[in-house]
Amino acid sequence: MRTHLVYAHPHHGSLNASLRDEAVQTLEGLGHTVTVSDLYAMKWKAVADFDDYGPTEADSFINASAQAWDEGTLSADILAEQEKLLAADNLILQFPLWWFSMPAIMKGWMDRVFTNGFGYGTSRDWKRYGEGRLEGKRAMIVVTTGAADTHLSARGINGAIDDLLFPIQHGILFYTGMEVLPPLALTGAGWNPDYEGMTKRLRERLETLAETAPIAYRHQSTDYDEDKLLLPGLEPEGTTGFALHTA
Amino acid sequence: MRTHLVYAHPHHGSLNASLRDEAVQTLEGLGHTVTVSDLYAMKWKAVADFDDYGPTEADSFINASAQAWDEGTLSADILAEQEKLLAADNLILQFPLWWFSMPAIMKGWMDRVFTNGFGYGTSRDWKRYGEGRLEGKRAMIVVTTGAADTHLSARGINGAIDDLLFPIQHGILFYTGMEVLPPLALTGAGWNPDYEGMTKRLRERLETLAETAPIAYRHQSTDYDEDKLLLPGLEPEGTTGFALHTA
Repeated sequence: MRTHLVYAHPHHGSLNASLRDEAVQTLEGLGHTVTVSDLYAMKWKAVADFDDYGPTEADSFINASAQAWDEGTLSADILAEQEKLLAADNLILQFPLWWFSMPAIMKGWMDRVFTNGFGYGTSRDWKRYGEGRLEGKRAMIVVTTGAADTHLSARGINGAIDDLLFPIQHGILFYTGMEVLPPLALTGAGWNPDYEGMTKRLRERLETLAETAPIAYRHQSTDYDEDKLLLPGLEPEGTTGFALHTA
Repeated sequence: MRTHLVYAHPHHGSLNASLRDEAVQTLEGLGHTVTVSDLYAMKWKAVADFDDYGPTEADSFINASAQAWDEGTLSADILAEQEKLLAADNLILQFPLWWFSMPAIMKGWMDRVFTNGFGYGTSRDWKRYGEGRLEGKRAMIVVTTGAADTHLSARGINGAIDDLLFPIQHGILFYTGMEVLPPLALTGAGWNPDYEGMTKRLRERLETLAETAPIAYRHQSTDYDEDKLLLPGLEPEGTTGFALHTA
């Protein structure tokens, strides 16, 4: 098994850094080949711009992205990440929840690595949401939060963590074809965190990576009509919100 | 009226650039004083790191952020944005929807400008969600999407645009005290966009900034208990998902 860990935290001595080391050690102990993209340590370029694509006369950013993929002129740092991803069986994203999403440097990994033609396509029949280039891989988010558990529950003031992560889990990971495992949310990381409990949960999730049931997001090819609307009658009556898109 | 527009798009000749110019012209025509942070043009630093905070012995990133706020050692680019924000009556965020969120450069504006002590606080009684430092200001997202309208409706495969924007609208804009107006989502921007229709809708929304009813997000101080759980019985029976947090 090969597992690629994309990691973002600015502090070398942080709780997140310890958890990352614990994850790598656990995975290697399980016999995985582990690659790590430590985005801060790599000084990963966060901002997608025309420099990513080489010479182009394209009239739009999205077309320049497609052209660079077709012609092999993507910048070397993007190509290296695409190769690590293609080589991996599992992708783990580890980050602290900043403003209810990823730190900008990791958003920049998404913006830059998942280029037009590699991560997404604009044609109607582009394989996405359950199928596509990264099909067969498994992805999991490991996220630390300053907020307590209750604050991130359905009635919690921040909104439910599963819904807050939907744009990433469904909109990026599942979009590109990966199976998405339930996230590991390590809450209350700011004050007196239960480090031992956290590492125990982390190890358990890594040991069960291959058999944990993925989130049952619905598939574009079977569950939506030509206008990409959910077919009628698939959901329990009264379902609203993102829950519509989970079987 | 003062309006601050934060704008992110990498292409000078883009649809977004035209819409930005249209917005500035319209607002100035209405008598607003307009400030613009064109993040790509400013080469805005997207990545929050210790360089933002000046000399520190703090043992965590979050504490270094608080210390820099207290001691006035935040970097000049952050202070300048905080001042523009404090001076404004309205904040407009304009961006293309990339991977169902903001481009990394704008996420980096959030990560870096909304520092500990300015944008958020860690104490239980920090004023947030409807109250706080930015109370009285109005905020609005103007977003372009490649996806069609139907794809971003509740049953659309991507999820409803209002839910996709919840982490930003509720978790950042409303969190810091601002009233959040319904977003202006200009869909189908990728293929044969209806530029005339888009600018018409944009102008109408700008002309009615002051009287448009904000999204009725619930307030921390009145609608949640001590564990920050929504008080029982406030919502129509059966409500689930982010809809719980809107009256």
